[in-house]
Amino acid sequence: MRAAVFHDAHDIRIENVDAPTDVGPGEVLLRPFWCGICGTDLHEYAAGPIVIPTEAHALTGASAPQILGHEFSGEVLEVGAGVTNVVPGQRVSVMPILACGHCFYCQRGLGHLCVNMACVGLSYAWGGIAELAVVPATHVFALPDALTDEQGALVEPTAVAAYGVDSAGVRPGDAVLITGAGPIGALASIYAASLGARVFISEVNPVRAALARSLDVGEVLDPSAVDVIEVLRDATGGIGVDQVVECSGNERALQTALDAVRSAGRVTQTGLHTRPASIDPMILAQREITYNGTWCYRLTDWPRIIGLIADRGLPVDKVVTGRIGAADLVEKGFEVLLSPKGEQVKVLVNAR
Amino acid sequence: MRAAVFHDAHDIRIENVDAPTDVGPGEVLLRPFWCGICGTDLHEYAAGPIVIPTEAHALTGASAPQILGHEFSGEVLEVGAGVTNVVPGQRVSVMPILACGHCFYCQRGLGHLCVNMACVGLSYAWGGIAELAVVPATHVFALPDALTDEQGALVEPTAVAAYGVDSAGVRPGDAVLITGAGPIGALASIYAASLGARVFISEVNPVRAALARSLDVGEVLDPSAVDVIEVLRDATGGIGVDQVVECSGNERALQTALDAVRSAGRVTQTGLHTRPASIDPMILAQREITYNGTWCYRLTDWPRIIGLIADRGLPVDKVVTGRIGAADLVEKGFEVLLSPKGEQVKVLVNAR
Repeated sequence: MRAAVFHDAHDIRIENVDAPTDVGPGEVLLRPFWCGICGTDLHEYAAGPIVIPTEAHALTGASAPQILGHEFSGEVLEVGAGVTNVVPGQRVSVMPILACGHCFYCQRGLGHLCVNMACVGLSYAWGGIAELAVVPATHVFALPDALTDEQGALVEPTAVAAYGVDSAGVRPGDAVLITGAGPIGALASIYAASLGARVFISEVNPVRAALARSLDVGEVLDPSAVDVIEVLRDATGGIGVDQVVECSGNERALQTALDAVRSAGRVTQTGLHTRPASIDPMILAQREITYNGTWCYRLTDWPRIIGLIADRGLPVDKVVTGRIGAADLVEKGFEVLLSPKGEQVKVLVNAR
Repeated sequence: MRAAVFHDAHDIRIENVDAPTDVGPGEVLLRPFWCGICGTDLHEYAAGPIVIPTEAHALTGASAPQILGHEFSGEVLEVGAGVTNVVPGQRVSVMPILACGHCFYCQRGLGHLCVNMACVGLSYAWGGIAELAVVPATHVFALPDALTDEQGALVEPTAVAAYGVDSAGVRPGDAVLITGAGPIGALASIYAASLGARVFISEVNPVRAALARSLDVGEVLDPSAVDVIEVLRDATGGIGVDQVVECSGNERALQTALDAVRSAGRVTQTGLHTRPASIDPMILAQREITYNGTWCYRLTDWPRIIGLIADRGLPVDKVVTGRIGAADLVEKGFEVLLSPKGEQVKVLVNAR
């Protein structure tokens, strides 16, 4: 079958690999529909292998070369013995995180912090940018008719964004700043607005700012043109926003976040920084600010996120700016997404 | 009367000032016993005026020259009309924070974040390093017999330290690292141990490390001699400590804190940093760490702290390394405390 295979940094190939030959007990054979390219994939392409193991992964035995793709929807083709949650023909979304179940964190209900964590499409035999994939049945969730195949591929980044917003403690009526309108920032904005929060979005890139405006979920501020902190103080009676969800991974945005939040407010780090950042700890102490990080989502979140997208009609597919076939993955996917122009936000790949 | 008066940086004088002439309704006239020299006082002496106002303070009208001293105990000499909580002759501890009562934070029960905050001994007509002081009766609390006059002067820094430990969510059995064994770190260690936590203290200064050891509340680690993170991992089955209370105000200690805490753990910033610090936001995100700051204490905490010191016999006076008269304030107080040798930890001053 055809699959997108990571060999090394700047070496991702669309090539023929052996198709899965059997579906074991508790497993599901899928035909992937759409699969999103994630920031983690970009880091692997630009500077990997980072997360992709070069020796056999402790939990899964996987190592590079690795079939990519961990944000995907698909159709169930076949189920293994004992599988009762899905049947062939059903459309599903895949929760790609594989937790070991026995480490300190797994044993305490914190599988998303598993020290032996693996991930479909990064450290597992199969991935979503391929004609076929086998995953544990515990990790596939049927999509209701209200969700499109595209939206099914967006459950994963929506879960990441929602977990960041939830961790920030955003409530109806709260004023919240989302810094950065990449895929996670845009999805966080949609989710926060759906909770009933007053959403402000800061984004310096004009393409991403335009996308954020098109969501119509809040006020979009350009930090290169306006004093974001002043605008937010004016909008909150001089107080500052209740929360900030830092989705940019940018040092300046983090500093703005700590200045923009009110005393006793919360800044949640959901964007991934690739280098250290300078902050002023005195601000946290004197204004009693909480700065917490999130990564991933609670592994119990999947049905909730699917239900939210369905029931509230969350327009998560508005963040999609490109749809490509697997053959174009490097040229129209990775290369364009890594371009400093930022002309693409979320690109979905179809490997069929 | 004699009083310690701040005029400017490096200009604190013991001089005669007018004694208070009348005690208004709701006020109390005190004869201070002991008064601690606080880090805030040191900052004022070294680089002030910072907190001390140079123009009339919005809440109190005070401005430099300012009588110093905000960590003090004393005897009630006289009470104004309507005062019912204390009577002349009683020994009391003074809660020095004055909140405006009408700002956004005061109106929400967060007076310790008051935007118009004043403080006895920093931005108020009177202070604790003087023969007499007048304070609101709402801010004095009778000392039980179990508390010495010295301990009464240590309620304030104990409240600061306890609030940091409480904000970190330290519970019985938790493993907690206290970084820095200055007055706040030492008091935080005493308090955390009294909660039933397993306490580790990191301190590079040998005088402070020796003081920390003398408290006999936990294991004292010298970061210049041992790998603190490795020791803590070994002591916690490879996991890391549950919480860190960062009491040093030192960048390296903060970095150690973020590395030493387990995933989903908490680092509370209680020490005041005087410059920005570089941290790795990726650590917070990937390990879901919460980093929160505290300053001061809840204004409702005073009776609780007095009761704790009394009922549990907390040896808070063990942090006292110097007892001086007001005449020696600069030479044996400020100058010694600011010396890089760190040979003094907490110095109490008696102005009688």
